[in-house]
Amino acid sequence: MPDTLALEGALTRLDRFTIEVPSWGFANTGTRFGKFLQAGAATTLEEKFADAALVLALTGVTPSIALHVLWDLPRGLDGVPEVARLVEKYGVRAGSINPNLFQDQEYKFGSLCNPDAGIRRRALEHVLYSVEIARLLGCRDISLWLADGSNYPGAQSILHRIGWLETALLEIHSALAGDQRLLIEYKPFEPAFYHTDIADWGMASHLARAAGPRARVLVDTGHHYQSQNIEQIVAWLLHLGLLGGFHFNDRRYADDDLTLGSIDPYQLFRIFHEIPSTDEAEFANVAFMLDQSHNIKGKIEATIQSVIVAQELFAKASVVDHSRLAELQSAAKTVEAEECLRAAFWTDVRPALTAWRERRGVPCDPLRALAESGYVAKVERERGSRNAVLQSSYA
Amino acid sequence: MPDTLALEGALTRLDRFTIEVPSWGFANTGTRFGKFLQAGAATTLEEKFADAALVLALTGVTPSIALHVLWDLPRGLDGVPEVARLVEKYGVRAGSINPNLFQDQEYKFGSLCNPDAGIRRRALEHVLYSVEIARLLGCRDISLWLADGSNYPGAQSILHRIGWLETALLEIHSALAGDQRLLIEYKPFEPAFYHTDIADWGMASHLARAAGPRARVLVDTGHHYQSQNIEQIVAWLLHLGLLGGFHFNDRRYADDDLTLGSIDPYQLFRIFHEIPSTDEAEFANVAFMLDQSHNIKGKIEATIQSVIVAQELFAKASVVDHSRLAELQSAAKTVEAEECLRAAFWTDVRPALTAWRERRGVPCDPLRALAESGYVAKVERERGSRNAVLQSSYA
Amino acid sequence: MPDTLALEGALTRLDRFTIEVPSWGFANTGTRFGKFLQAGAATTLEEKFADAALVLALTGVTPSIALHVLWDLPRGLDGVPEVARLVEKYGVRAGSINPNLFQDQEYKFGSLCNPDAGIRRRALEHVLYSVEIARLLGCRDISLWLADGSNYPGAQSILHRIGWLETALLEIHSALAGDQRLLIEYKPFEPAFYHTDIADWGMASHLARAAGPRARVLVDTGHHYQSQNIEQIVAWLLHLGLLGGFHFNDRRYADDDLTLGSIDPYQLFRIFHEIPSTDEAEFANVAFMLDQSHNIKGKIEATIQSVIVAQELFAKASVVDHSRLAELQSAAKTVEAEECLRAAFWTDVRPALTAWRERRGVPCDPLRALAESGYVAKVERERGSRNAVLQSSYA
Amino acid sequence: MPDTLALEGALTRLDRFTIEVPSWGFANTGTRFGKFLQAGAATTLEEKFADAALVLALTGVTPSIALHVLWDLPRGLDGVPEVARLVEKYGVRAGSINPNLFQDQEYKFGSLCNPDAGIRRRALEHVLYSVEIARLLGCRDISLWLADGSNYPGAQSILHRIGWLETALLEIHSALAGDQRLLIEYKPFEPAFYHTDIADWGMASHLARAAGPRARVLVDTGHHYQSQNIEQIVAWLLHLGLLGGFHFNDRRYADDDLTLGSIDPYQLFRIFHEIPSTDEAEFANVAFMLDQSHNIKGKIEATIQSVIVAQELFAKASVVDHSRLAELQSAAKTVEAEECLRAAFWTDVRPALTAWRERRGVPCDPLRALAESGYVAKVERERGSRNAVLQSSYA
Repeated sequence: MPDTLALEGALTRLDRFTIEVPSWGFANTGTRFGKFLQAGAATTLEEKFADAALVLALTGVTPSIALHVLWDLPRGLDGVPEVARLVEKYGVRAGSINPNLFQDQEYKFGSLCNPDAGIRRRALEHVLYSVEIARLLGCRDISLWLADGSNYPGAQSILHRIGWLETALLEIHSALAGDQRLLIEYKPFEPAFYHTDIADWGMASHLARAAGPRARVLVDTGHHYQSQNIEQIVAWLLHLGLLGGFHFNDRRYADDDLTLGSIDPYQLFRIFHEIPSTDEAEFANVAFMLDQSHNIKGKIEATIQSVIVAQELFAKASVVDHSRLAELQSAAKTVEAEECLRAAFWTDVRPALTAWRERRGVPCDPLRALAESGYVAKVERERGSRNAVLQSSYA
Repeated sequence: MPDTLALEGALTRLDRFTIEVPSWGFANTGTRFGKFLQAGAATTLEEKFADAALVLALTGVTPSIALHVLWDLPRGLDGVPEVARLVEKYGVRAGSINPNLFQDQEYKFGSLCNPDAGIRRRALEHVLYSVEIARLLGCRDISLWLADGSNYPGAQSILHRIGWLETALLEIHSALAGDQRLLIEYKPFEPAFYHTDIADWGMASHLARAAGPRARVLVDTGHHYQSQNIEQIVAWLLHLGLLGGFHFNDRRYADDDLTLGSIDPYQLFRIFHEIPSTDEAEFANVAFMLDQSHNIKGKIEATIQSVIVAQELFAKASVVDHSRLAELQSAAKTVEAEECLRAAFWTDVRPALTAWRERRGVPCDPLRALAESGYVAKVERERGSRNAVLQSSYA
Repeated sequence: MPDTLALEGALTRLDRFTIEVPSWGFANTGTRFGKFLQAGAATTLEEKFADAALVLALTGVTPSIALHVLWDLPRGLDGVPEVARLVEKYGVRAGSINPNLFQDQEYKFGSLCNPDAGIRRRALEHVLYSVEIARLLGCRDISLWLADGSNYPGAQSILHRIGWLETALLEIHSALAGDQRLLIEYKPFEPAFYHTDIADWGMASHLARAAGPRARVLVDTGHHYQSQNIEQIVAWLLHLGLLGGFHFNDRRYADDDLTLGSIDPYQLFRIFHEIPSTDEAEFANVAFMLDQSHNIKGKIEATIQSVIVAQELFAKASVVDHSRLAELQSAAKTVEAEECLRAAFWTDVRPALTAWRERRGVPCDPLRALAESGYVAKVERERGSRNAVLQSSYA
Repeated sequence: MPDTLALEGALTRLDRFTIEVPSWGFANTGTRFGKFLQAGAATTLEEKFADAALVLALTGVTPSIALHVLWDLPRGLDGVPEVARLVEKYGVRAGSINPNLFQDQEYKFGSLCNPDAGIRRRALEHVLYSVEIARLLGCRDISLWLADGSNYPGAQSILHRIGWLETALLEIHSALAGDQRLLIEYKPFEPAFYHTDIADWGMASHLARAAGPRARVLVDTGHHYQSQNIEQIVAWLLHLGLLGGFHFNDRRYADDDLTLGSIDPYQLFRIFHEIPSTDEAEFANVAFMLDQSHNIKGKIEATIQSVIVAQELFAKASVVDHSRLAELQSAAKTVEAEECLRAAFWTDVRPALTAWRERRGVPCDPLRALAESGYVAKVERERGSRNAVLQSSYA
């Protein structure tokens, strides 16, 4: 079992581990069968910043909030000063900028891959516009999730769409300023059910390489085939210098967007295990972000719970005895190597985390602190009437 | 290859093959990422009946329309006379009656399986009310799809919920009148992502048996695990006398609700192959219904296309040389038995279907007839302004 | 976090938790691409008993060994006295008796479901013979795994085979003596790849009910579809009074037969959580058995490791605060209920297990004790020359 | 429906479509649960050539046989003259050369990725030796399937193994002579069940690019995750200039190695649809090979059946009206585009194929010709005694 020294080292690494929360994690979301509306859900950008500020205050490790261009900056560039004001007011940085290429009716047959050149152009311009917003807000990362695809065999030319995509990403990359990065996300299906233009890490990494050196791949842990080995993909992306970051969540079946670690905590532990936290510069290149759909759990509650789980599993991965493990792996001592890894997983890091939180001046038990704060009850009263307008949950 | 005689026999069996269309197949639906709104989508019940009447006129084989209590009879029993009027006016029967146990906010933690006895009671009453509506409309089948489940391990007691479910179904069954039937649908996941209370055919069939003799299982072809053998389940349900009917659609990944036969036509052919169409009485006990989400394809176009595909694959299954196949199976002649089945699949039944349609006095090419009818353009003009109210597609 | 009292209670329940080891777990096994031969693998029945005795000595919780009729009693009833002698000599009981219905060439198209009545008869007689062997050895359980199925659509009549199966199981059940039980295993695929006659728990449970009251279902944790909720199936089987026992192993893709808990320990924890260990009589009706393929890990090493993992996860499940959990579930407090369950999972039970082992007089660290015993090196020397005869690993 | 002209064009393209048969397709193979031995199975290389010659005589389109170094050239370079003699005698070319990196006991923890540098070296030398054999036999393609991987988390360093693999492939590539090609196969799992070093097309294509310009990717149709879109991967590989060829077979669950088109014929049709057969040079760069396990079907029977199915589905793909389809795709006419593609799939090409066979001077019905030839009965008599030596099928 890891000794005190190992735990100390783990906690040091924990000091560098921050997580970005998504603005939409505080808003009402659901499934196609409906949303279960929460009276305290955030509807304005300021409410999202306020909620994010609370999560930061209670956990100490979520310094930034991911923004969604269409939902959070509906007025586009004109919305930038307001974001700047909220950043200043709430002490939460603007994080990754997320263009939206799936919501407009004209994207029915695709955005950057639409067979209509005019629509492709408008989609491209939306992304370029998002890059500009990011530049003005000083945001490093543009997170590109493309819902493009088709639902029926023969409906679209898979091959032509690859070409259109490459062209568009090249143009987007050339618009990046300074140290900005383009993070390319992949997803096997949904909302497209026959083919999705960026379906797996292989496609995303080829596209990133073709786009340019500041394009990287974004791994959403829920965007894989059943049984696919995600930690191996992470190892490959690190090997290729292409790992840009994570959208964290958990899933059992499809892209369920459950809170991370809720279904398979051992897997998330193994993902953390692949990321060498010792190289500070490379570690800083990996953006850790939540991207979940809090339909059943309370929005803020779910966010805080997820942050805690991420910290616990990261801490467990940090107490792995790497030198001993490397030796056992070299000697192909299967059982002993496995037990070496597993010893870290079974280590109860909760007491150490409590101590770490005390040192950082945040509540030892952030979930209890949330309950005791009365914040949720307060915002339910304040925001409830606005949320009640929505009569039905059916999507 | 099947000779003319076999084709003739197949077409005779085709005379008995009718398909029920769902009212919601004419309305706007989508994914959790949004709906692609169609100007011609039906919003009123009369529009749905009108569209169904057109499908019936063009195909000749869709005599009934499945109704959804919440969407089609929002006033409940008070809406029955209006349905009766539409049935009379459009010549389309009211088909299966579908209660809704997923849309109300109080169903967040379940309906018939909710830990709150009061909510369970209200859910039960909604179903009993639906049975009464069905009785008044002379509908044989109540189709029960239960979205109940939980999203996180530990969140609910799986075991307690089984008991609550059995109790409720027993009470529902006892309310059935005359020849009414309760069809119990199963689905592995969505909208619940950790456990779904009726997740597979095993659970549905145990529940049906426990409920009573007029409870049967409803097979939605999209509600299975990856790679599960649906035709085997159909064979088992027939063996147990529990096959109530089908909700047809196709899928590649999850419950994609694509038009039937679009992804794996061989599978649907094999399902038809398991159903002995020679026993008229037993065949009449199997309800064939569409249940798809026409998000990309035109609503009426998709419905007609699906009916044609169903007829083609049913006709192919009907030209299987059963006596020869039985011999080859008994002798375990694998390749020859497979080729015997496959010969039917590869038979081009389209010319025979054209002849059959001529004989029935419906258009030889229903899709072309739809295009030439100008109906869609007409309803787009008429219904468009109402549909345009919806500004955004985001669910 | 669970207090000392909870841990004490957990350890008391641990006293009742025993695990059966399979004789074939000590022999060379592999994949269709070959076996990696181990010099110390057991080839005689006595070697298997000797290895099992060692596992019992080192863990204290594996009192019995599952036997395979074809491999362990190739002379059938004539082999019974030898088994009795080994039981006496090694202090390890004969556990479940496993007929073999897949290895003979005549089973190419099935055993109990073969279209040839003569082959069906011979298969049936082999099972009846196995029941007799079990009776003579005083074994309670006959574990029936049927590899029957077909590889190509149309090759066999799925429906006829259901009937043959029911008939056979009825006859087998009627041959059971006293308190003997028939455990019916299910498996979705392999070695049959189109349809498997007993493919899921629904089929197995219908067959068990049709066979008679002493037939129950055997859950092999590796025999499920991707993402299927095994603990829910366990809850259903308990509800129906049909849970006979487990074949434990873990898997990531197909029926990988890895050591249990190695891929998804949280799932095994949840399975244990569904089994009420408080009802001693019912608990005794659940047979816990390993069934793994130790191709890469050392045979004895893998067996001991698996026993330890099973105990750890069982102990974790035993410290769940059930009354508090029930309250939270009733109140639908999702996050709190989940955290209540998870608190038990994260509890480090290893120190308590060490104490428990000390009290039982077995080594605190059974794996280290194995290494220090020199047993493996000894049997490698003794058995190596016999194992070396096998030149190639290719299956 | 396609007119006569389209069919004529399709048949012209069929003239260029040849398929390579695998030597091991004529030998006994099975699952880990055993082989069903066939009296007529080939055991010597000459028997395999004789069987391949028969398939060529009956179909006219299988000019070459894939060879497996370990099984077909156990004496290595010394076996080359014998192969040359058989090529001459039977008129069947030596096709792709398949090294074996999974069968030796020392590959337990990997071959080119083994943590032991000595074993990595010996594995590399075996491949280099295979390249040399290929050179001497005038074979263009070396097909590399790497079974390397690990079974348990932590057991091996995923990252280190990527590096070792790149180094090895670079050296192999540099040994290629003239127009030789290195085809790199991928597979998600089996025989490794936790991680496989070349698990998907993304890994294979990165490795091929890193190795050099004559390295390409080999697509085994059975080596994908459930529901993965294979035709999209084919489109990507064509786009990247990396498509080397196919190992054809079909599957339902895992890598079932069933005969191609037996489970999902529509999918194989769509794969053919993605390959532009109009560019002769590029088309010649795609190697079409069978790789199946004929455990239940007769070896030669299964091979011939597979060739016929491949021709039928290729012919169907060849009658697609590409210019019309392109128009419909551009206009996003989903239903019409789908029906355009599907019209080709439903075209009964069997009469045209019969005519084509007549023109080529091969039997119109190759399967019947096989039955009438008496060949299988003859080889069963000749080879039966040798095959009978194998007493048990258990792997």
